[in-house]
Amino acid sequence: VPGRAALSDSLAAIVGAEHVRTDVDRLYLEEAIGNEQGSADAIVFPATADEVATVVAHCYENGVAIVPRGGGTGLAGGAVPHGGVLVSLERLTRIRAFDPLLWRIHVEAGVPTHEIRRIVRESGLYFPPDPGAAEQSQIGGNLATNAGGPHALKYGVTGRWVTGLEAVIAPGTLVTLGGATRKDVAGYDLSSLLIGSEGTLGIITAAWLRLIPAPEVSFPIAAFYRDAEAGCAAIEGVFGNGIEAAALEYFDQGTFAITRASFPGSAPDDAFVIVAEADGAVDEAARIRGELIDVLGESAIALQEPEADALWRWREGIAHAVAGRLGAKLAEDVAVPVDALARAIELTVEIGARHGLQAVSWGHGGDGNLHSNFLFDPATDGRARAAEAAAELLTEIVGLGGTISGEHGIGSLKLPYLGLQLAPPVMGAMRAIKDALDPKGLLNPGKVI
Amino acid sequence: VPGRAALSDSLAAIVGAEHVRTDVDRLYLEEAIGNEQGSADAIVFPATADEVATVVAHCYENGVAIVPRGGGTGLAGGAVPHGGVLVSLERLTRIRAFDPLLWRIHVEAGVPTHEIRRIVRESGLYFPPDPGAAEQSQIGGNLATNAGGPHALKYGVTGRWVTGLEAVIAPGTLVTLGGATRKDVAGYDLSSLLIGSEGTLGIITAAWLRLIPAPEVSFPIAAFYRDAEAGCAAIEGVFGNGIEAAALEYFDQGTFAITRASFPGSAPDDAFVIVAEADGAVDEAARIRGELIDVLGESAIALQEPEADALWRWREGIAHAVAGRLGAKLAEDVAVPVDALARAIELTVEIGARHGLQAVSWGHGGDGNLHSNFLFDPATDGRARAAEAAAELLTEIVGLGGTISGEHGIGSLKLPYLGLQLAPPVMGAMRAIKDALDPKGLLNPGKVI
Repeated sequence: VPGRAALSDSLAAIVGAEHVRTDVDRLYLEEAIGNEQGSADAIVFPATADEVATVVAHCYENGVAIVPRGGGTGLAGGAVPHGGVLVSLERLTRIRAFDPLLWRIHVEAGVPTHEIRRIVRESGLYFPPDPGAAEQSQIGGNLATNAGGPHALKYGVTGRWVTGLEAVIAPGTLVTLGGATRKDVAGYDLSSLLIGSEGTLGIITAAWLRLIPAPEVSFPIAAFYRDAEAGCAAIEGVFGNGIEAAALEYFDQGTFAITRASFPGSAPDDAFVIVAEADGAVDEAARIRGELIDVLGESAIALQEPEADALWRWREGIAHAVAGRLGAKLAEDVAVPVDALARAIELTVEIGARHGLQAVSWGHGGDGNLHSNFLFDPATDGRARAAEAAAELLTEIVGLGGTISGEHGIGSLKLPYLGLQLAPPVMGAMRAIKDALDPKGLLNPGKVI
Repeated sequence: VPGRAALSDSLAAIVGAEHVRTDVDRLYLEEAIGNEQGSADAIVFPATADEVATVVAHCYENGVAIVPRGGGTGLAGGAVPHGGVLVSLERLTRIRAFDPLLWRIHVEAGVPTHEIRRIVRESGLYFPPDPGAAEQSQIGGNLATNAGGPHALKYGVTGRWVTGLEAVIAPGTLVTLGGATRKDVAGYDLSSLLIGSEGTLGIITAAWLRLIPAPEVSFPIAAFYRDAEAGCAAIEGVFGNGIEAAALEYFDQGTFAITRASFPGSAPDDAFVIVAEADGAVDEAARIRGELIDVLGESAIALQEPEADALWRWREGIAHAVAGRLGAKLAEDVAVPVDALARAIELTVEIGARHGLQAVSWGHGGDGNLHSNFLFDPATDGRARAAEAAAELLTEIVGLGGTISGEHGIGSLKLPYLGLQLAPPVMGAMRAIKDALDPKGLLNPGKVI
């Protein structure tokens, strides 16, 4: 392994001295959520995919770990380095091609996801993935984690919109997998393998994305229930009545109590809240809105502008508000079959209580995806109790047929729990693939596997 | 490697003597299309996933090749054995769970895809994948090839509807990947890796599938053009005007000339034909139909029952009619970016002509997916000329940024051409994965890789 000065010189020869730093700004050593701080020997800011490949080749040859870095909005520690070289994709911001008349865009990994959504919307098109923090997160990172979001219910997660990837794989080779063609079954689906692998099998440098015509309108609806059981029955009612909602979010009573002050419009106290959305052409969206209001029951109200915009802003602010309640929180991101959602919501609260902690959850109800949060005062022993509670929750969730991560990924923080969910032969197959594609174990070590 | 009698005895001990045969019916040694005949030491008909696992374990330990067998409707030789044991999934026909109120079904690999579509439709639901030969093909085979079909344009290919798989991997281990939960990013996406791998990385024994509410209606439209250029301009017009068609099929002039007699309704001679479909709730589908008719031009006609049903029957019969024209055909299944579709259609005809062969194509125009067919009289040297023409076409298609297989897979027949499309490092990554997951190379050897 080369010394830090030699490493820096070599990287400078690839990307230019002004794009390498050995004194790494702490903002690059942690995630925006602030739950872990790492260290790195250097950070490098390549300008092109070829430069990424050359950087990886140099590091790989010299036994230096490589940690790709997007917008830093991850929640599982996936982009936090523990030594080695951080490879920031933030200068890979080219829109390589945009063909609005053919519903496709070819973008580099560092383009903010929000920017893609904005650009295509100007041409009447829609890129549906809308993970939290879309303004800061980059499409490369969203693909590396296969990020979800509220509209994944109707439109699917980020990976579903990919027709091709460009990536750097070990030992530093730039490859193209697919492209602008919409269907392709020639060989193994290496794109899907890279998507969600959090940089442990390669670094995504660009993607070809599918688009669809933008819905003309979207109509939000809020409804209020006495508890999780009643609210989840309403969610099941949406499915049971064959209604295709664009989003179907829930907020448990604890979450709503914390955030109620900024909720737009009137609402009962102590409610379990559902926010649904109908979208499409005007008449179609109105028809779906009507069906949703019927099924969600007498408390359901259609929100009008400006309340509709305010509703999604309220939604975006929840994680921050919950963290502020006692000063800190430990967040999980579990998912269960929809018919186990009520039980999972109740379990979150019960397990928190057993450990002397307030616990709340909210999330993508229609997808059975809970953001379960254990709240604590960082001046107490709360973090240790929260960790115990979280481990207990993950075990119970797996028992319900669920997953320890619905959309945030495994990173380093969830890694100790992966064995709760995946049987040894599945872990073995993952390990065999990792060893096959990264024989030196230098691609984002300590993450996912 | 055990002798045939010893092998048969061992397999009989697992599945019962009545479910093993060493005298293998030739129907299991070829594909329904009839383009290749293989051989097998035995065929085994396990009744359960556990039996599949035990069979694979026995074969794997004893160095015997294992070839999974679904409905036999593949087109690329993927299910044709070249020695070893054929593992038919046809007795794995249980619907393990069907939750119509939650839009999901859990089925074993041997359930015919058509049967799944029928069962869910009775509850008002829709399983969109509709590959050709859906009555005979089984869901396991459709997943193993990631089959497409006309409605993949709006709804995506088979793999997009999977939330979980059960599969047997080497050396004979039954594993579960995902389940009924709709979102899951815990670990690598092994499901997507198995989907489309044609049994070379494992044998799919069951799947959890997502469903959606069935569209209330679907309205087909036919339109007629002077040539591929005009027809493909109309297809691009559908995209360019932001219209979400459920299907957008094309039939070139040569295809239409061969099949015109069974086309329902009046049509001009010598036409390049487009069939579009609008679906959804009645008003919404009618709106889309109106937009499609506007954009497809003055020749566009909305088909009414019984013509609408007859239209899709005509569509299903095309491959057979084209094969019957001269007695034989060599079929390719290429796909290109949509803006290269007209050129690819013209290339098919031009390359055929250079080799003295009539060549026609039809397919999923909106997905840029061509079924290019070179026709010949089997009593002549036509097959050799067709093979030369096909190789030339594949090279040109790759040059257009396309793929040598849009939906049929690589099997053994397309394997010699995979290197035209995939760069050596991509082939290397595939090989590394194959060696990692099938170190003895016994899972469907000679296919895909």
